[in-house]
Amino acid sequence: MNKLLIFFILLSYHCNGQKINVNENRLKINWEKLKEYGYNEVTGGNDRIAFSEHNLRALDYLEKKLKSMGLKTRRDAAGNLISLREGKDKKLKPIAFGSHIDAVPNGGHFDGQVGVLASIECIETIIENEIETSHPLELIIFSNEEGGVLGSRALAGSLTTESLKVVTASGLTNSEGIKKLGGDPSDILNIKRQPQSLHAFLELHIEQGSVLYDQNLDIGVVEGIVGLRWWDVEIVGSSNHAGTTPMNKRKDAMIAAANFILNVNKIVKSIPGTQVGTVGRIKSFPGAPNVIPGKVVLSLELRDLSEKKLDSIFNLIEKNSKEIEKKTQTNFSFYPISATGKAALTDPKVQKTIQDEAKKINLKTILMPSGAGHDAQEMTHIGPTGMIFIPSKNGISHSPDEFSSMNDIKNGTQVLLNTILKIDKINF
Amino acid sequence: MNKLLIFFILLSYHCNGQKINVNENRLKINWEKLKEYGYNEVTGGNDRIAFSEHNLRALDYLEKKLKSMGLKTRRDAAGNLISLREGKDKKLKPIAFGSHIDAVPNGGHFDGQVGVLASIECIETIIENEIETSHPLELIIFSNEEGGVLGSRALAGSLTTESLKVVTASGLTNSEGIKKLGGDPSDILNIKRQPQSLHAFLELHIEQGSVLYDQNLDIGVVEGIVGLRWWDVEIVGSSNHAGTTPMNKRKDAMIAAANFILNVNKIVKSIPGTQVGTVGRIKSFPGAPNVIPGKVVLSLELRDLSEKKLDSIFNLIEKNSKEIEKKTQTNFSFYPISATGKAALTDPKVQKTIQDEAKKINLKTILMPSGAGHDAQEMTHIGPTGMIFIPSKNGISHSPDEFSSMNDIKNGTQVLLNTILKIDKINF
Repeated sequence: MNKLLIFFILLSYHCNGQKINVNENRLKINWEKLKEYGYNEVTGGNDRIAFSEHNLRALDYLEKKLKSMGLKTRRDAAGNLISLREGKDKKLKPIAFGSHIDAVPNGGHFDGQVGVLASIECIETIIENEIETSHPLELIIFSNEEGGVLGSRALAGSLTTESLKVVTASGLTNSEGIKKLGGDPSDILNIKRQPQSLHAFLELHIEQGSVLYDQNLDIGVVEGIVGLRWWDVEIVGSSNHAGTTPMNKRKDAMIAAANFILNVNKIVKSIPGTQVGTVGRIKSFPGAPNVIPGKVVLSLELRDLSEKKLDSIFNLIEKNSKEIEKKTQTNFSFYPISATGKAALTDPKVQKTIQDEAKKINLKTILMPSGAGHDAQEMTHIGPTGMIFIPSKNGISHSPDEFSSMNDIKNGTQVLLNTILKIDKINF
Repeated sequence: MNKLLIFFILLSYHCNGQKINVNENRLKINWEKLKEYGYNEVTGGNDRIAFSEHNLRALDYLEKKLKSMGLKTRRDAAGNLISLREGKDKKLKPIAFGSHIDAVPNGGHFDGQVGVLASIECIETIIENEIETSHPLELIIFSNEEGGVLGSRALAGSLTTESLKVVTASGLTNSEGIKKLGGDPSDILNIKRQPQSLHAFLELHIEQGSVLYDQNLDIGVVEGIVGLRWWDVEIVGSSNHAGTTPMNKRKDAMIAAANFILNVNKIVKSIPGTQVGTVGRIKSFPGAPNVIPGKVVLSLELRDLSEKKLDSIFNLIEKNSKEIEKKTQTNFSFYPISATGKAALTDPKVQKTIQDEAKKINLKTILMPSGAGHDAQEMTHIGPTGMIFIPSKNGISHSPDEFSSMNDIKNGTQVLLNTILKIDKINF
């Protein structure tokens, strides 16, 4: 290449804001440092459950790091760690981005964590390249994501004080846990942010499914986070001696439950689309091998981007259960659980920006729903939101086997950085 | 009626050994006294669980009562209370009869207890009528029937020392419980009795099913106690995120379990006969509403009088599971549990004697299997055994609602007494 050509290439990169590259090596070092906080020596997984000592120490470590980079840091009332870098224009709304560092018990080292590390890498790259954005940049590490997106719900104003009493995987209530992280549960309702108070919100996350991995794609541009509905289904028959009650005299709640489980599966599969339905928990009463179950309680979970479709699937399931009731001489009751979330669509303009920025650096993208819940779901209430998925090996998550390659993490981080810088220049 | 007719009727009764009647009023008073030991004031049920204080105090009360009637009483190494009335001929083998006084937690006042009360009433009637039997009479109150027919297994020699370590519903191990009742666990293997060492064994028990009650019959003549087989069935699929794993990518152990439960039901019902099959216990792993179960463990219990039929039913179930494995991409493992019992047939001559004696006093009888396990099952190893069932209202047992009428108890006791006296004269 002659020198003139090199000059034009550099100029072209500069004009597209593409010359700034994230540092893969630094990302890797930071990932390895964070991994130490809650590393499970036996399984190789991660026990950094929300509100644990591991969680607190990791948060302290990251706050120190962010502060040393020149950001203004604080813990809000919900225990979120919020780090601010001022923009050139004080009147502009912030561009926020972030994720969580808490994990499920014996989880992995990627879910949530790579989103936080990517966010830090973006800020660090911006600072080292002496870029001044017009908008303030706000890096948010949300508290207790795995236990019901607590931190983002507080910001979105969708948290009730009832949630504060819930005992979390750490053994502490949300209220006790928030205090431990430096928050103030009594002030939690006051941190609610107004709709459209952010210029945009962005979250990078591992897919936790195998769509990207199976199709060898780089970036998932999330269309929205599916709505999640959850019921406890109680099936009542009649408990009786398993030896002395003839087969034709039984009102066996277990038989009704088995019919129900297969019907849920059949109904959910019978409709075109990406909806899912799961029975994950089941308990029989009295639960002895020699007693016909008089009661079975099981969980029903349905997810889809369309609330209307969720309605119609549940109606089919409910209708079908009436037939099982007749056939098995049992009674079904459906108890909706309040910890469910409405479908949350991401912003089409943000979606397009992510897609464009990914394509510019030759990454293969796909538009897809997120089957899992995320903090971004709550953040849609506060500003135009976008989400960037990177591949999960074999779609495994919430497990020590969770894995995303450093190359995929670097690609996602680069897309996140380029999207932040692009959005900084867009007036939505 | 003229005096001559009355004389002939009395003479005829005397010749048939039928003039001796059990005392219904005394039975009722004794039933009400025993009821006090472990009465549950809240439910109206009975908490006289094996090795509880209630159990010990009730046993002390009954031993005192039996001793005062002139019987030689002792506790054997298994904590069985054995009361002996000598017979005329010292060379003859004893006729034994009895049942148990321990109950399931929050059980009823009939299961086991009416058999013990009937046995005591028989002895008391024999004594007050100054009848001397040729054979010694042995009244046995077995220890811990509900926790696996412990006392009768010790007598039959089918107990292993492993069983002594098992923690029972009382919180005590069998070993500790036996000591509490006055037994000696270290000597338990030595109380094994030889085959055919009894002239006969008889047990009266409530049916715990609704065959007699539904058909308005008085006496069930038990053909045998069904064989009971029990497996823990482990179904392994692949645990995954319920939101991000498409329906067609799942290896859902819960779907396999539901197919299995329905197939067990279908297979057991598809064969003529009284066999039963039950899935009473189920557990999913990890057992969260938002995780596709990677593993389900459930219990499979099969019962029938024919061991051959049990074999063939299990073979069908196992074969069918291979199809479920393929369809759901899961793996089934069957773990047989050692606490299962072989089918035990009662003695046809004893059956016939019971039936004849019941018919003589105009009671309606039926020949039937016992779906529940009983001490009599073990006693078949020691001598010719017979079992007398009386009706259970609506077939309910192991519940405060368990009920048998005093008239039915009296009828059963009279049949037990008449059978003892008849068998005393029969040389098997």
